[in-house]
Amino acid sequence: MYFKTLEPAFYDTDALGHVNNTRLPAWFEWARNDLFRVFVPDLDPRKWPLIMARIEVDFLAELQYGQPVEIRTWLSRLGGSSFTVTQEAWQSGVCGARGHCVLVQFDHHAKQSLPIEGELRATLVSHVHEHTDSAELDVPALRAAARALGTHSAASEGSVPA
Amino acid sequence: MYFKTLEPAFYDTDALGHVNNTRLPAWFEWARNDLFRVFVPDLDPRKWPLIMARIEVDFLAELQYGQPVEIRTWLSRLGGSSFTVTQEAWQSGVCGARGHCVLVQFDHHAKQSLPIEGELRATLVSHVHEHTDSAELDVPALRAAARALGTHSAASEGSVPA
Amino acid sequence: MYFKTLEPAFYDTDALGHVNNTRLPAWFEWARNDLFRVFVPDLDPRKWPLIMARIEVDFLAELQYGQPVEIRTWLSRLGGSSFTVTQEAWQSGVCGARGHCVLVQFDHHAKQSLPIEGELRATLVSHVHEHTDSAELDVPALRAAARALGTHSAASEGSVPA
Amino acid sequence: MYFKTLEPAFYDTDALGHVNNTRLPAWFEWARNDLFRVFVPDLDPRKWPLIMARIEVDFLAELQYGQPVEIRTWLSRLGGSSFTVTQEAWQSGVCGARGHCVLVQFDHHAKQSLPIEGELRATLVSHVHEHTDSAELDVPALRAAARALGTHSAASEGSVPA
Repeated sequence: MYFKTLEPAFYDTDALGHVNNTRLPAWFEWARNDLFRVFVPDLDPRKWPLIMARIEVDFLAELQYGQPVEIRTWLSRLGGSSFTVTQEAWQSGVCGARGHCVLVQFDHHAKQSLPIEGELRATLVSHVHEHTDSAELDVPALRAAARALGTHSAASEGSVPA
Repeated sequence: MYFKTLEPAFYDTDALGHVNNTRLPAWFEWARNDLFRVFVPDLDPRKWPLIMARIEVDFLAELQYGQPVEIRTWLSRLGGSSFTVTQEAWQSGVCGARGHCVLVQFDHHAKQSLPIEGELRATLVSHVHEHTDSAELDVPALRAAARALGTHSAASEGSVPA
Repeated sequence: MYFKTLEPAFYDTDALGHVNNTRLPAWFEWARNDLFRVFVPDLDPRKWPLIMARIEVDFLAELQYGQPVEIRTWLSRLGGSSFTVTQEAWQSGVCGARGHCVLVQFDHHAKQSLPIEGELRATLVSHVHEHTDSAELDVPALRAAARALGTHSAASEGSVPA
Repeated sequence: MYFKTLEPAFYDTDALGHVNNTRLPAWFEWARNDLFRVFVPDLDPRKWPLIMARIEVDFLAELQYGQPVEIRTWLSRLGGSSFTVTQEAWQSGVCGARGHCVLVQFDHHAKQSLPIEGELRATLVSHVHEHTDSAELDVPALRAAARALGTHSAASEGSVPA
């Protein structure tokens, strides 16, 4: 599991006073950076081997400006050339939004999907948890593992609930 | 059905050279303006009676900068206090993305959902088409009706395929 | 002069209830599409010969969701390889924001600026008005000229004040 | 001086392959969060006492996806009720963009500016450096001071050049 913490910006809010729904797909894309590094270690866009097939987001509670948001990211499905990424946005101990997206390993020149194999597949397997709700997972253990692996963001201790 | 045409901006693109996936929820929110007017005729945010419960988008073809995009918007489900809006983004005769969102009529002060009744319900019923793909609908007839009702955007004739 | 009309989206607002300041540079970039076509008629990003050197925006009045915004765009300076674009955002008869940006004709492969010459220069000269406030210009005449040239957006008559 | 580090998102790029110019005003607004806390410690938007009068950004070098960006933020001018914030975006040892914005302490209900006085003024004075280029300042000393004050972001050591 990947953990990253962000600070909302004022422009993330809308006239209802909390974070606008259109920001969640953007936050989730940002939080996939560490996962993208599995495919493109230096994140050079010219080597990009992924295409987005689908996104979905459920809005569970209002997210506010002024408090950090932890994004939890894992693979809930790993297929032959595609996979599903599940992500949650937590703030003040509450899961405010949960999203799933389907990405496909894709050759942008040949315009065709590519099988996920070998070492790449092995690395992705280590991030697979066949659950679509982190409440079903042992988050403290996953958090400790992420700290050891360097896939846990540098937010100061204590700012985000376990 | 509501029809609106937009011109992509350069900032809508990403390093892959086409429209970034995170822009579609934003475009779709923009294209719901005419639907929002059914609830709040002057679009005053202080009177806003809606809350977003869920969005989903399927990416079907690359959308490009440099060509107009037509957004088609209709209700594919009308429940007691919630409804599903289906939207498609068409460019150069191809449906590039299709989205669904679930909105709930909601009292932001009382923090509770509100039933959709009376004249409001009657107006919404006229925009219900129980299909989630406009290929199953008579789009030329719906376009003509939208022109008559003023729910068709002012893009010049011929810029968007029927 | 170029005239384009946009409808604000709900996501353009922030928690203060009106349009967030960061949206103006985005709106202005969108409104430069017609000017970009002078350089790249089909707007293919792979042929892009421009680079942004500087932007500035003065915020003169709050811009609101719910009312159309007219963006007026002209060249207030044309140099050897660079030029200044001045843009205003008008809503309900008030200029809410005025911006200037400096663009440079640029060869992205050779990483050097390119002189603006010949037919390109002649076309740009026709959009030069050495004023940085449209109040000093004959806007009704410029609007009529823009309609004749096709550089006036298709917003319905009467929605934007002259 | 305030120091904050961000990771660009894929959506921050455009079809030219690097960070789009419209993202800089957004990044700079985000990086003013710590400064905003001087005015509104809990960042509650309902207590917001600031209004944006002007922004400007000079683009000095391309900013790329894939490398962290350090934003340096200080006050380069403190007036009676307004002040100028200067900000720089550094990546891989290069200043890619420098911006200035003018903010006004403002009563949104009374629609009038408010003088900056007392303890608020004293705190702001400690962030004033009458230079508009951090090359003229002792950045290592300011960075050490920011670490002591808690106005230095938590990015891992070594990811950003001094």
